[in-house]
Order: sequence, then structure tokens, then C-alpha cells
Amino acid sequence: MDATDAVEVDFGERGLVPAVAQDAESGDVLMLAYVSPAALERTRETGLAHYYSRSRDELWQKGATSGHVQHVEEVRVDCDADTLLYLVKQDVGSCHTGHRSCFYRTIDGENVGEKVFDPEAVYE
Amino acid sequence: MDATDAVEVDFGERGLVPAVAQDAESGDVLMLAYVSPAALERTRETGLAHYYSRSRDELWQKGATSGHVQHVEEVRVDCDADTLLYLVKQDVGSCHTGHRSCFYRTIDGENVGEKVFDPEAVYE
Repeated sequence: MDATDAVEVDFGERGLVPAVAQDAESGDVLMLAYVSPAALERTRETGLAHYYSRSRDELWQKGATSGHVQHVEEVRVDCDADTLLYLVKQDVGSCHTGHRSCFYRTIDGENVGEKVFDPEAVYE
Repeated sequence: MDATDAVEVDFGERGLVPAVAQDAESGDVLMLAYVSPAALERTRETGLAHYYSRSRDELWQKGATSGHVQHVEEVRVDCDADTLLYLVKQDVGSCHTGHRSCFYRTIDGENVGEKVFDPEAVYE
């Protein structure tokens, strides 16, 4: 694509946009986190998903601690250009609880997710 | 499920959580919008997706204008209970641009989405 066709992301007043990570193969929605301009730049440069932690106030690479990185196959932008969609190949699992997806519960508390690792063994 | 098992959603300081709408059949991520406690309650009561518009500062039912409603089959909550996932049956299309999904563009500006209606005919 011509560089002039690139979509200008609207990071808003807070300088962050939500990004949905979706498993590129299964289509499962894995997680939602926030992205700063620098996190998006690092994601595009490295091909590995980066986000911005609002609680720790820092850029982070998904999987930096656990090793469960996300290989980003495509970045999409929504109609208002204020939300991103990362299509990823997720190593092992995305959730710190050990589930494949962070959306492992219904709102009624039923566990519908797949447990793929033991968090105590990974985050020691 | 026993009512005591219900997950308590963390609506945070702003009283809103992001909600991802995913096509329950195709798995496509359709859109992201924000949900207030009242919007969630209306969604669960009616089985139709409701959101809260930050720009218009009001509760809205998806498809109230276009007729393109979302029938919610399941509501999921993420590990931190501060993001929702609506699994929906989407009538026609979710995007005001006429696309099936709001994520119809890559960040490089390539259109990878499916156009399913003429917005000028729907929003006259």
C-alpha cells in the first residue's frame, strides 16, 4: 500500500485506544488492552503485540514475562479510527489466569474457557 | 446458574466498560462500544444489544435507527471484569458505513470488509 493510504488513528485526549486481540486462526476474542502511539509503533516494527498499561503507566510487550507472545498478522482499524483489532497468533494462552482467552466466563459466572497453562508455574 | 455466581462488573470511575460485539456464527469482530450499568441491564432484559454513547451522552439500542439490531446470545466478562464480550446475531450490518463489521480496514488503509447495505438509503 502507498504510505499515504495509511489510516490516521485517533488516540483521543488520553493518548490511548482500546485494542482487541483476536486469534487469527480460531477467531476467538482473546483479550482487550490499551495501545499508545509508541505501543502501536513497536507492534508494527517487531510484529509482536505491544500495549500500554494504564495501571503501571508503561509500555509492555505481551508475553514479556510469561513468554506467551502474540505474533501480529494484521492490524485493523474501526470506522471511527479509535479502536484497533490485532489479528494474532497467540503462543499458549493470553490470560494471566491460565486460560486461552481472558473472556473465559459468562456474566453469570459459568466457566466456558479453556485452561491451557498453570499460572503458578509460569508467574513464579 | 445461581444468582450468587454472577460476576460483578467493574465499571470504574467513568461508569463505563468497553464491550466487543462478535458475530456468534462467523466469529467476526463487528464493533466496539461502551456500556453503562443501565445499558447492560437493558441488554440482559431485552436480549438486544444496548450501549452508552459518550458523545451523545445517552443510552442507545444498536439498530434503533437502522433496524440492524444485535440479538445477544451470550455476554462474557474478561478476567479483570472490566470488559464485556457480546456474542450476537447481527441483522444486516453493524457499521454505519454499510459494512458488515466496523473493522473493515487494515491500518494501511486496505479495505478488507464486506459492504452489506447502502448507508444513504438506510440513514436518510
